[in-house]
Amino acid sequence: MLQKIHHIDFVVRDLGSAVAAYRRLFGVEPLPRERLDGRGVELVRFQLGETWLILVQPVRQDSPVMEFLERHGEGFFHIAYQVASVDEAARELDGRGVRRHEIRRGVEGWKLLDLETAETCGVMTQLVEQDGGRADA
Amino acid sequence: MLQKIHHIDFVVRDLGSAVAAYRRLFGVEPLPRERLDGRGVELVRFQLGETWLILVQPVRQDSPVMEFLERHGEGFFHIAYQVASVDEAARELDGRGVRRHEIRRGVEGWKLLDLETAETCGVMTQLVEQDGGRADA
Repeated sequence: MLQKIHHIDFVVRDLGSAVAAYRRLFGVEPLPRERLDGRGVELVRFQLGETWLILVQPVRQDSPVMEFLERHGEGFFHIAYQVASVDEAARELDGRGVRRHEIRRGVEGWKLLDLETAETCGVMTQLVEQDGGRADA
Repeated sequence: MLQKIHHIDFVVRDLGSAVAAYRRLFGVEPLPRERLDGRGVELVRFQLGETWLILVQPVRQDSPVMEFLERHGEGFFHIAYQVASVDEAARELDGRGVRRHEIRRGVEGWKLLDLETAETCGVMTQLVEQDGGRADA
């Protein structure tokens, strides 16, 4: 079912200084800053092999990512595995009784599905299908 | 400097049930259980594209991973980026004033270097060179 690790999100307090730190550490160049209004975040992506490494900063108090940052501090936020079809993956998971959230759209129109962390030993986990759809707005 | 995400470790309380959960969720088959006596852990690896996903359980009270588990609970432990040469990466990082630990050996003889998490926005981060050396014992 899983094809690869599609992306990994790290939540940070200050996107500008986080991007500077990662550039300095690793000499990797990011894409331009992006904004996801529906989630109340700004983010910067680095391509690392077949995976996106994403630094995310919440920019509104009501962002669910702000709540996470205030509770846990900076660090790992979630991992997303690429699947051929999110709809098909959802049907398979439902058949196995795996608890999940509703399918939604992320950055660049990524079609994605969040699992319950109780199903993944505490790791916030998504499945994502990269299909060129419309972005979350 | 970075070539790809080499592996990601998730710390779990019970390796047997964690492996069963990940197999059930994703239909992925792991390698046989491994033991790293020097770190006081047992682990199981799944190959996902170009990256190893590793479930790690501390099996001794004095394991540094046990301390992490007791403080943070189950979940993300660290991410490791592959580099061509850990020695060369260490020299580059030293030249930039980046704080790091000493070079050591991990599972399957992976030569690796831990960074200070203050350098990576709270994310426990390693650099690793896969060179077929001797395993940590």
